[in-house]
Amino acid sequence: MTRTSLQMQSTVHPNGRVAVTLERIEVPSPAADEVIVRMEAAPINPSDLGNMFAGADMSTVSPCADGIGVEAQLSPGVLRAAAARLGDPLPMGNEGSGVVIDAGASASAQGLLGRTVALRTGAYAQYRSIAADHCLVLPEGIAPQQAASCFVNPLTALGMVETMRLEGHTALVHTAAASNLGQMLQKICIADGVQLVNIVRKPEQAELLRALGATHVCDSSVSSFADDLTEALADTGATIGFDATGGGGLCSQILAAMEAALNRGAGYSRYGSTVHKQVYLYGSLQLGATELNRTYGMAWGVGGWLLTNFLRRVGQASAQILMQRVANEVTTTFKSHYTNTVSLEEALSIGAIEQYNQKATGSKYLIAPKKS
Amino acid sequence: MTRTSLQMQSTVHPNGRVAVTLERIEVPSPAADEVIVRMEAAPINPSDLGNMFAGADMSTVSPCADGIGVEAQLSPGVLRAAAARLGDPLPMGNEGSGVVIDAGASASAQGLLGRTVALRTGAYAQYRSIAADHCLVLPEGIAPQQAASCFVNPLTALGMVETMRLEGHTALVHTAAASNLGQMLQKICIADGVQLVNIVRKPEQAELLRALGATHVCDSSVSSFADDLTEALADTGATIGFDATGGGGLCSQILAAMEAALNRGAGYSRYGSTVHKQVYLYGSLQLGATELNRTYGMAWGVGGWLLTNFLRRVGQASAQILMQRVANEVTTTFKSHYTNTVSLEEALSIGAIEQYNQKATGSKYLIAPKKS
Repeated sequence: MTRTSLQMQSTVHPNGRVAVTLERIEVPSPAADEVIVRMEAAPINPSDLGNMFAGADMSTVSPCADGIGVEAQLSPGVLRAAAARLGDPLPMGNEGSGVVIDAGASASAQGLLGRTVALRTGAYAQYRSIAADHCLVLPEGIAPQQAASCFVNPLTALGMVETMRLEGHTALVHTAAASNLGQMLQKICIADGVQLVNIVRKPEQAELLRALGATHVCDSSVSSFADDLTEALADTGATIGFDATGGGGLCSQILAAMEAALNRGAGYSRYGSTVHKQVYLYGSLQLGATELNRTYGMAWGVGGWLLTNFLRRVGQASAQILMQRVANEVTTTFKSHYTNTVSLEEALSIGAIEQYNQKATGSKYLIAPKKS
Repeated sequence: MTRTSLQMQSTVHPNGRVAVTLERIEVPSPAADEVIVRMEAAPINPSDLGNMFAGADMSTVSPCADGIGVEAQLSPGVLRAAAARLGDPLPMGNEGSGVVIDAGASASAQGLLGRTVALRTGAYAQYRSIAADHCLVLPEGIAPQQAASCFVNPLTALGMVETMRLEGHTALVHTAAASNLGQMLQKICIADGVQLVNIVRKPEQAELLRALGATHVCDSSVSSFADDLTEALADTGATIGFDATGGGGLCSQILAAMEAALNRGAGYSRYGSTVHKQVYLYGSLQLGATELNRTYGMAWGVGGWLLTNFLRRVGQASAQILMQRVANEVTTTFKSHYTNTVSLEEALSIGAIEQYNQKATGSKYLIAPKKS
């Protein structure tokens, strides 16, 4: 029996328009080591938006002339950057969860029948065919809605703490810290005894984190922010940061505060502290250039941080340990909150897109392919 | 017998003025393991200017009311950054060379009598007292004028190639490449069989480097610069760069060209090449913020690079090997060119300051303390 499935696809066309549409695809019967997952829950992460809209000017989003979906216009520069995906319909959805409803003949595939699993890529679909050993198997009793976000946020949060350790730091800084990811990071840090300095933009975000047990929360909207941050960095000794905003001056501000904290009581040194200060940019919530004012001596670094590059760096065995921790703690440490649940079709309505494209902290969409 | 010596000193005063003056100091007889060096040649490097003028507004430079020297005004922000040196007269001159004219009783000190040596710090003086084992001893027959610049430029150039190797790259990029430092780097790369991409700002600078044997020179003043650079990077496989300009967009432009070179013929990858691309900023010829437009995927890094931090990283034994290479090749690989030779007093004339503060490639001042 061949099933069909609605699948969300994104295609950049040579005319500079990106189309995000629902297409009906065939899902062949599973091979011996494969399973078929009935997808039930998949989050819309900022990284999904990058795939879906390919950097289009979002003020140009409009419904497609035919079929279900939307399209938007890319600037010439952005179109050039997308050259390698031109004309290819790419399945959307970086992660999601569902129930295994069919399995190939192998014991490992058969063993998953009826189980809740989480998977990566192609998650915005009704059905997904996948190798059995590419599934993350959740403990019995976990519903797909609880396991929708097992990879991107949990592994990123764990990866930050691992990177901190690998690079010889003992405490860390995080921006946009009240996000789902930020809350996970705070819980991990409490469990692991790691000091964390949270940077948020609103008083209510600070309170949310304090309610989770956060001890250091700095609100960038208050006038004492630079002093507050320096104080928190001096308290914790944090010399590595992870910044979700990317553009603008926050990264440089963090480095300057680290340097000020390190220089407390130190004598004059023309080239600043010799302690290495590092900020990784893992997101681009703020578009535009990153501006580094270089007022923090010479022992500093800024760089991109990407989950898949981190996982390659630590290797498969370490990644497996981290994923097992996610499966074990999916209803506690790695619990996610969603503000809206939408069907595949509703996810492509102009109103929903306008909302989730704001990437506002505290607002998060979940796609439920079974919902209609 | 106690000698006296003119010494150039720089003092930041609480009123926000920095004074760069000539002072007469006492040079006591050498202890057992010390020598007295009659200084004969010391270069004015950009790093010296940072020490001398402490980031002052150079349009405010004027002669001191009394004594020999000049003063200039610091902005409040720059003054804050100089807090730790407030009121302390600092001896100037990061490097220089002279002849040992007096020595303590120890064999190692006595062995240096009459020899040309190079030394670090306090070089802008007539006489300098120093521990014998802090001297770099030049081969017989080398004059101090040939050994004035044994540390800053030679070790920086060698340090770039070592850093390239340490971090797993096989070819490198250098900006402001026609400088004394850049010429040394090109000669080292030819000797060591390392591919180098030189970035210059004028056609005559490109010719100078080609005359030294450079094969890859990109002129940032021509319209095809971005394409030329990408081509050179694809040819050489360079994935690490050293940028003397610091501010502005050149660093970001280099990363973008590296990414374009790496992506030639590669398939679509939303997050770009997974090959790490690195640019180190080792100077600030261009003031103002470094602007990173982040159009080069996620596998990239930017950071400060400082010679003393590099030497600490590789350790004393490695540093010694590099310094011995400088001593051995001081008239070939590490030969420096100076356009002006001035006395200590002339170095503090307004006219000379205006000239050497331009930090123009091809223009370089040498202080000869014996000149009057």
